[in-house]
Amino acid sequence: MNRPVNSGCLTGIGLGPGDPELMTLKAQRALASARIIAYFCKRGQRGHARKIVDGFLTADCEELRLVYPLTTEIPFNHPDYVDQLHAFYETSAALLAERLAQGADVALLCEGDPMFYGSFMHLYVRLRTRFAVNVIAGVTGMSGCWSAAGAPMTWGDDILTVLPGTLPPQALLQRLQASDACVIMKLGRNFAKVRAAIAEAGLMARAIYVERGTMSEQFMAPLAECGERPVPYFALILIPGHGRAP
Amino acid sequence: MNRPVNSGCLTGIGLGPGDPELMTLKAQRALASARIIAYFCKRGQRGHARKIVDGFLTADCEELRLVYPLTTEIPFNHPDYVDQLHAFYETSAALLAERLAQGADVALLCEGDPMFYGSFMHLYVRLRTRFAVNVIAGVTGMSGCWSAAGAPMTWGDDILTVLPGTLPPQALLQRLQASDACVIMKLGRNFAKVRAAIAEAGLMARAIYVERGTMSEQFMAPLAECGERPVPYFALILIPGHGRAP
Repeated sequence: MNRPVNSGCLTGIGLGPGDPELMTLKAQRALASARIIAYFCKRGQRGHARKIVDGFLTADCEELRLVYPLTTEIPFNHPDYVDQLHAFYETSAALLAERLAQGADVALLCEGDPMFYGSFMHLYVRLRTRFAVNVIAGVTGMSGCWSAAGAPMTWGDDILTVLPGTLPPQALLQRLQASDACVIMKLGRNFAKVRAAIAEAGLMARAIYVERGTMSEQFMAPLAECGERPVPYFALILIPGHGRAP
Repeated sequence: MNRPVNSGCLTGIGLGPGDPELMTLKAQRALASARIIAYFCKRGQRGHARKIVDGFLTADCEELRLVYPLTTEIPFNHPDYVDQLHAFYETSAALLAERLAQGADVALLCEGDPMFYGSFMHLYVRLRTRFAVNVIAGVTGMSGCWSAAGAPMTWGDDILTVLPGTLPPQALLQRLQASDACVIMKLGRNFAKVRAAIAEAGLMARAIYVERGTMSEQFMAPLAECGERPVPYFALILIPGHGRAP
């Protein structure tokens, strides 16, 4: 470690699934004392993370927006996409490093839990050898969703698998069949494929679709009753376990 | 649904992984207004859940202790164990039902998240058709542990599998090999078996052992450096993913 003596600390703040009340006390305190916050967002949007902290910041808190490059026209596995993201994370890390090196603390807002599929991690691994770092765990999106759905998720010796909807159909089917409980994330354009795999695995009767869980626009329904609909990328499907339940 | 008009509401309160600061604002408010709390514990002990809420309850809050039957002498899969647990959950549900039917609200304390391997679920499914119920999501033990360990857990399209250490060696090995990231829970007497499976899967270099994560007695170490030691049932092993990281 080669940390400048008077440099600042990078804190990843988990903000929970969307309902600001599901923020932790630790996150609340960190926000109340933050002088500089940073957050990822799409061009022209504030982003969910920033919305969650409305009312929790001091008036003079400085905001660093980290605006994702436009990538909707580029397929996910295309080298250009990876190159663009790499450059974006490098630039973002350099922006934060500049402030940290000046001795300022920076708080990076994270939806859900910072270490669970979070963009924060890309900056964390770039900065942790040079600066002090701190991570505040948060309630994950999936916890928010299964609690909102009133769905006991894992019992006794259940195996839980968290699957990205981006997997090929056969891989999805195989994992669905090998688990007691499943969460399928990253739906969006993968929705029809995921639903077909769930039907083939014979799990349709247990599957629950949840969109914007714990937020004011929350929508949920048994997957079997979900017609064709525009599905957000961050919607998810829950397949609760039904293991040992004395 | 056949809910008595003037009956109370059962609320499962997720308290997070151990550090009281990792409780949500919603949990804090629910505790501050609770007139009756209930919690699971072992004979002669207060239990972790009760310890976490020290300082968050009103002075006149009534406490219902739900004391687990002594089962340490009975093997886990033995019918007597299941029978004893079944009777215990029935009795506990009846105890809460009596108060709920009188119109009192009851808050049940839950370590971690109520719907994720929680004893709460056994009472929830017994009472939800008769009474109003509410679930407050919490930070899971595993989120607390991987944040405390500074371990980015799942990247991009990683598959995460949560495995109980009670699985047979071959099943453990197979799941370890089929996942990008793993959490192995319920260690205790299963520790040596789990460690051997991780070594056989070639994952030892990535494995982190965490005991009492986020609590004052927290201990963590690379699994490869953990000698023979008494391992608590609620310790866990993290195998972080190393997927797509632009």
